[in-house]
Amino acid sequence: MDERRTVLLLNGPNLNMLGVREPEVYGTATVEDHAETAAKAAAAHGLEVVHHQSNHEGELIELIQGARGVHAAIVINAGAFTHYSWAIHDALAMFDGPIVELHISNPQRREPWRHTSVVAPVATGSISGFGSAGYRLAIDAVAGILKGR
Amino acid sequence: MDERRTVLLLNGPNLNMLGVREPEVYGTATVEDHAETAAKAAAAHGLEVVHHQSNHEGELIELIQGARGVHAAIVINAGAFTHYSWAIHDALAMFDGPIVELHISNPQRREPWRHTSVVAPVATGSISGFGSAGYRLAIDAVAGILKGR
Amino acid sequence: MDERRTVLLLNGPNLNMLGVREPEVYGTATVEDHAETAAKAAAAHGLEVVHHQSNHEGELIELIQGARGVHAAIVINAGAFTHYSWAIHDALAMFDGPIVELHISNPQRREPWRHTSVVAPVATGSISGFGSAGYRLAIDAVAGILKGR
Amino acid sequence: MDERRTVLLLNGPNLNMLGVREPEVYGTATVEDHAETAAKAAAAHGLEVVHHQSNHEGELIELIQGARGVHAAIVINAGAFTHYSWAIHDALAMFDGPIVELHISNPQRREPWRHTSVVAPVATGSISGFGSAGYRLAIDAVAGILKGR
Amino acid sequence: MDERRTVLLLNGPNLNMLGVREPEVYGTATVEDHAETAAKAAAAHGLEVVHHQSNHEGELIELIQGARGVHAAIVINAGAFTHYSWAIHDALAMFDGPIVELHISNPQRREPWRHTSVVAPVATGSISGFGSAGYRLAIDAVAGILKGR
Amino acid sequence: MDERRTVLLLNGPNLNMLGVREPEVYGTATVEDHAETAAKAAAAHGLEVVHHQSNHEGELIELIQGARGVHAAIVINAGAFTHYSWAIHDALAMFDGPIVELHISNPQRREPWRHTSVVAPVATGSISGFGSAGYRLAIDAVAGILKGR
Amino acid sequence: MDERRTVLLLNGPNLNMLGVREPEVYGTATVEDHAETAAKAAAAHGLEVVHHQSNHEGELIELIQGARGVHAAIVINAGAFTHYSWAIHDALAMFDGPIVELHISNPQRREPWRHTSVVAPVATGSISGFGSAGYRLAIDAVAGILKGR
Amino acid sequence: MDERRTVLLLNGPNLNMLGVREPEVYGTATVEDHAETAAKAAAAHGLEVVHHQSNHEGELIELIQGARGVHAAIVINAGAFTHYSWAIHDALAMFDGPIVELHISNPQRREPWRHTSVVAPVATGSISGFGSAGYRLAIDAVAGILKGR
Amino acid sequence: MDERRTVLLLNGPNLNMLGVREPEVYGTATVEDHAETAAKAAAAHGLEVVHHQSNHEGELIELIQGARGVHAAIVINAGAFTHYSWAIHDALAMFDGPIVELHISNPQRREPWRHTSVVAPVATGSISGFGSAGYRLAIDAVAGILKGR
Amino acid sequence: MDERRTVLLLNGPNLNMLGVREPEVYGTATVEDHAETAAKAAAAHGLEVVHHQSNHEGELIELIQGARGVHAAIVINAGAFTHYSWAIHDALAMFDGPIVELHISNPQRREPWRHTSVVAPVATGSISGFGSAGYRLAIDAVAGILKGR
Amino acid sequence: MDERRTVLLLNGPNLNMLGVREPEVYGTATVEDHAETAAKAAAAHGLEVVHHQSNHEGELIELIQGARGVHAAIVINAGAFTHYSWAIHDALAMFDGPIVELHISNPQRREPWRHTSVVAPVATGSISGFGSAGYRLAIDAVAGILKGR
Amino acid sequence: MDERRTVLLLNGPNLNMLGVREPEVYGTATVEDHAETAAKAAAAHGLEVVHHQSNHEGELIELIQGARGVHAAIVINAGAFTHYSWAIHDALAMFDGPIVELHISNPQRREPWRHTSVVAPVATGSISGFGSAGYRLAIDAVAGILKGR
Repeated sequence: MDERRTVLLLNGPNLNMLGVREPEVYGTATVEDHAETAAKAAAAHGLEVVHHQSNHEGELIELIQGARGVHAAIVINAGAFTHYSWAIHDALAMFDGPIVELHISNPQRREPWRHTSVVAPVATGSISGFGSAGYRLAIDAVAGILKGR
Repeated sequence: MDERRTVLLLNGPNLNMLGVREPEVYGTATVEDHAETAAKAAAAHGLEVVHHQSNHEGELIELIQGARGVHAAIVINAGAFTHYSWAIHDALAMFDGPIVELHISNPQRREPWRHTSVVAPVATGSISGFGSAGYRLAIDAVAGILKGR
Repeated sequence: MDERRTVLLLNGPNLNMLGVREPEVYGTATVEDHAETAAKAAAAHGLEVVHHQSNHEGELIELIQGARGVHAAIVINAGAFTHYSWAIHDALAMFDGPIVELHISNPQRREPWRHTSVVAPVATGSISGFGSAGYRLAIDAVAGILKGR
Repeated sequence: MDERRTVLLLNGPNLNMLGVREPEVYGTATVEDHAETAAKAAAAHGLEVVHHQSNHEGELIELIQGARGVHAAIVINAGAFTHYSWAIHDALAMFDGPIVELHISNPQRREPWRHTSVVAPVATGSISGFGSAGYRLAIDAVAGILKGR
Repeated sequence: MDERRTVLLLNGPNLNMLGVREPEVYGTATVEDHAETAAKAAAAHGLEVVHHQSNHEGELIELIQGARGVHAAIVINAGAFTHYSWAIHDALAMFDGPIVELHISNPQRREPWRHTSVVAPVATGSISGFGSAGYRLAIDAVAGILKGR
Repeated sequence: MDERRTVLLLNGPNLNMLGVREPEVYGTATVEDHAETAAKAAAAHGLEVVHHQSNHEGELIELIQGARGVHAAIVINAGAFTHYSWAIHDALAMFDGPIVELHISNPQRREPWRHTSVVAPVATGSISGFGSAGYRLAIDAVAGILKGR
Repeated sequence: MDERRTVLLLNGPNLNMLGVREPEVYGTATVEDHAETAAKAAAAHGLEVVHHQSNHEGELIELIQGARGVHAAIVINAGAFTHYSWAIHDALAMFDGPIVELHISNPQRREPWRHTSVVAPVATGSISGFGSAGYRLAIDAVAGILKGR
Repeated sequence: MDERRTVLLLNGPNLNMLGVREPEVYGTATVEDHAETAAKAAAAHGLEVVHHQSNHEGELIELIQGARGVHAAIVINAGAFTHYSWAIHDALAMFDGPIVELHISNPQRREPWRHTSVVAPVATGSISGFGSAGYRLAIDAVAGILKGR
Repeated sequence: MDERRTVLLLNGPNLNMLGVREPEVYGTATVEDHAETAAKAAAAHGLEVVHHQSNHEGELIELIQGARGVHAAIVINAGAFTHYSWAIHDALAMFDGPIVELHISNPQRREPWRHTSVVAPVATGSISGFGSAGYRLAIDAVAGILKGR
Repeated sequence: MDERRTVLLLNGPNLNMLGVREPEVYGTATVEDHAETAAKAAAAHGLEVVHHQSNHEGELIELIQGARGVHAAIVINAGAFTHYSWAIHDALAMFDGPIVELHISNPQRREPWRHTSVVAPVATGSISGFGSAGYRLAIDAVAGILKGR
Repeated sequence: MDERRTVLLLNGPNLNMLGVREPEVYGTATVEDHAETAAKAAAAHGLEVVHHQSNHEGELIELIQGARGVHAAIVINAGAFTHYSWAIHDALAMFDGPIVELHISNPQRREPWRHTSVVAPVATGSISGFGSAGYRLAIDAVAGILKGR
Repeated sequence: MDERRTVLLLNGPNLNMLGVREPEVYGTATVEDHAETAAKAAAAHGLEVVHHQSNHEGELIELIQGARGVHAAIVINAGAFTHYSWAIHDALAMFDGPIVELHISNPQRREPWRHTSVVAPVATGSISGFGSAGYRLAIDAVAGILKGR
């Protein structure tokens, strides 16, 4: 039985800008607030969230590589890397647990280049369009999958 | 303020076959079980689920038309209609509340024709790949959006 | 010589929602009002309009099938079916009289998927973008064609 | 061993118009005549044909759903639904016996949109271009497959 | 209120050949006859038609440019320029009144390159396939729009 | 009336490998066995099968050329040439009798490049997916067509 | 029998620059020299060449329109108009005699946009890649066709 | 050494409408004002601007043809011709000096058909999106190139 | 100086069927007659034609390979191989003299797959649509090129 | 009023190689020389250039993020990242000032993959093909825009 | 354990021309020299090379068919057949040992049609761009794979 | 003569995971083992391998930049960067020696997005599908090329 109780939460490029500037436009919630939302949801399931935000593809790849055998699941909002970073795809493909693709807005309602996801082919499931609440839903989804194991 | 407290849950073509046959393959959960999962989740939020499954495009269109001013939100697993029924798209576009697109499996991991969704352009958000749990997550997502209003 | 004096007017999916809701947005004219517009125009030409609205593809197909030898012409606003219902195309192809494709707005100015019409290859002519007036123009067009026979 | 001895023969949209009108053009054979051809061929193999024609996608889906565990095989001429009804595709994919795709004419010799079949990916085999005789050949093909089990 | 009472009717390349040659094939109606049809229809609405035919793209552009503030509406059958003259598109985009795209035959039933229209994105509405009667219908459509202002 | 009583059966590249090797995988039936199946079916209709297998495009072309005025019909399983040999297409186009396209498996269920057939545009009909039985069905189909002449 | 003995030779945009400048690069032959080559070839067949070069699409259209009933054939090197002027295509389609498409170099060996010809669908035949000699060959081809009538 | 000191400034279709109408929308600067901006910038470099605006493709072609050996450089804002006039492309390809492609707005931010330029493959460089200032920048760019010779 | 005085004339698959059958349809001219036409034209230029027809790609490749250093030019009507035999393309690319692509009809007016030529990228020039006369024109073209060397 | 007086000049991957190696091929100007050119131009306008070159996508993203509220404008030559780094696109989209896309050569004249720019949709304007002078022109363009505020 | 010690080396169309002609261009190495290179490399591994060159697709197919159970591996440079001969693909798919795809130059650096390989989907590995040395490397690669069994 | 005796071996993203985890699945060979394989092969040729693995695009770019004038050749397995990193392409394009593209498996047999290589257009040659042995073969290939200089 899998004893791992941590969920790796990854936020990709430009998500560090959330809430920092122009809060009147994008809201005042920062990426840390979103991580906190996830952490609280995790605690309710007896899970713990380990959070990283990075604008560097290589860094994200290595965080994912390091998750094997360490974290129970990965929740990833890969930002714009979602649409072209096959290297992140390959890293995720080696992970030994459920992967949830997360987006704050619904990419299918935005520009056509956002309709393609290189994360999707290796994701267990995906959640998009629910803003900050998506972070809580993703953790709930992960908890459900882990219970099912 | 919106007083509507019901969520219209729609399951499209062939979802009535879930759990009925070959339970050893697809699991024993029927579409009614999924609706029950949603109903329980809704109750926890003070919401009520109104459920319909239909294999008829026209019927689904009319159920969606009837939701305006009546239901607070729509959660729809449009089955194969997801990929070509622009008439359902047009019906959803007239709804005056949040719409959640739901899929039991992750369509992005299946055949290419399942990668296109005519529901997505009019959906507030989407949840896919979490099996039965997706029904609970979708209701949770709806509840969050309604609270935010 | 053709003695038929009736024109079958068909309105497809979601057109029953016209004018019913949000009249401040879409105007107060209902699909019945449009049919009435057509009926008046027909009367001026000694023609009669037989009107049906349906959200069901199969129903529209059978109404078209029933028109052979019965109605002098068909005017059809197929709504979203315009863009994918090859079954309606096949039914229309068997009709023995002029067919007018009608749209309230101009589909060429909307989303790309509305630029394709499966009705067009079997339509004598098409009229789009003139709102309610299109119903009158379509009947006038039909009358002109019938006189020319 | 499979004891089922009936073959579900399905004819899709507009095939009810065969032979009814303009027999000088399309021949005098009706869809019932074709079903009769199939029935005779079936009798010679100790099989029985259950025939339905429908212009309604939902009805065809439910007829296919009802075939599981009941009929030994399905022979389907899906008419125009062949080219876009993924819902029929999904229904057929759940059937537990051989499926034969049937066309009276050869779709590959007609318009480009008739070159794509959503039935093909779930059909055991296909027969097209032989007119009424195709119904007999399809039953013969089914009988051969059933004997081989 | 708009006091303009003239409609600019433009016929593009090769339309000057209508009726001039091979009347046994194309009919005896010339482009002037069509303009006359339009003029009569206009008179019935208290409007006046100003007609130009040209085979020169630049000339058509300048006629359209000259219509701003002068004519109440433009009816344009751009002939083959319909399919590639973005310069005509740009000129029309600057016009301050309704624009009707007109075609004698239905371009959607002809070669694929005739299925694309650069006029459509800037046209209020379009009428095609009704032969000479289209000129009358277009004026009627214009009159209706002008009354609606 | 056509007195020709022979059917040219052509098997294209690599079909000579059937049954020869790995019978535990592909079955023990050789291409000669399939030809024998066809021959027996033909005898029942008073027809005779003339069979050739070739891996050489030019040879197949010349066998088809030689069939004009000699054989009553052609049944062709062109193997991989089905997907690119327009020279075989051109040869078949000159034949003065019915042509049946035959495939042992259903190409529509295999790789995308097998979904295109250069034989289809010149074939009267096609049969695929029925294994060895397809050879019998093809002859039956031919017999039916010949009787209908 | 056709009594017309003149061939309309049309050279399109930029062909007036041939030989005028940089003769060391493009040769010293001007478009008039090429017309002279054609004229000599024509004389040998009892034909006469009427030559026009124009950089104006509208002018070329009207020259083609004027050829009906006047010239026996058209030889046209449409220059860059070859690749997009559907208006020239439509004008040529109305001509009542053979049309030869001519190019000095071989467009198939140049940029991809030169591989498409709007002249080709209405041309009897085409000659390209033979430089100045193409003008003589085109006249010879025309003469051959005219003799065959 | 090149002694030419004039720059041919060409403005294509519809640019004559700039500033003439609706100055509250498009600004009050006319195409002549832009030419003046260019002329002043040129004077500062000891250059002179020769300006032409035309809505006629053929006219623009001939202006470009006439520039060889006469003008030191060409600055061209080809308007909508930018996107399809290969004849202008061919004319520019024969020019013996630097060519600058100029656009007032940034075509890459507008409709997809404006993303393709037939001028680009023969332009030394391009400047877009800077409004009137682009005319000054283009002349500065030209001056820099001429000095570099 | 090149002393070679022979022209290799190659006719590809199915051209041996010309004139042999159904002369009332295709004319009575055989491929040998066409070769004779070419031979006569060649004689007038002091050239000699060496003719081969083959339905075998490999044979054509080897005839082309054998032409290097032996024949002065190649005239090739590659039949259907024109559209896919890159091996013939590669063989032609090694030839040390002019190559003329020849077609009896105009492939651009036939099915789309005939619009692509693998011969074109290595052909000096091409002639199509002139029937038997094309053989004479091709030799004339070759003679002109050889004289120019 | 905006008090910011600095312009962030960013040079992307491989631009650090300019002038360092093979000066006989690429010229002796280094990226620092280009930055110096920009700095001088800026000084003339009372602006200051802050220059960074980086081969790291994440670094460029963070430099752009840091520019908000700090620098008055961004001039970016994103090198190969221009063609695929949607993460840089997203970072630029959050900047609160004008953005100029800059290229030393004209990407439209190079390989097809260089014709697409992910920077363009968020750039105010673009300058390409003028070599080192482009840096000066970009600063001039920026200065013009800033003055216009 | 596999006792087979021979490697079938196949060279496809036009490779027999290597070194025979224009040695100053293509080098003096003939296809036999390349085979000798392979043979020497094989000897060093205790393997033997059986070499065939053919310009005939059918011949290559039959050589591949004959390799089953006879040769330990196949090394194939299929020349232009690489890009379209699905029949060779099918033959290779039946081989019971490793297959190495070999090219003298790097097809990815040549024309687009050389970027597609029908051999690749059935090849164990591929080597390209190393000229004659590729033959030695391919044998080394084969030897390594055989040792690993 | 080139005195450089070192080969830069680069392994891209995720290749550091080889052999580290799940050795029962991927084998026990690590990327260091592969580098060792290459080093031994190099020693046999009097060459030395300098090895780097990186998950960071920018780092790989700078390693490649640093190779100019320092290393004799580059062998690169760019992992997923192979398919989209045009920045690595540009860096490689500046290298002054042979470049070998290396893949452990055969990308042509995997997902479609792995069929495109941005490394290929600048690689001397490529080797794929031979697992660890590919590292030895790549060094052998490099050695051959260096000897040939």
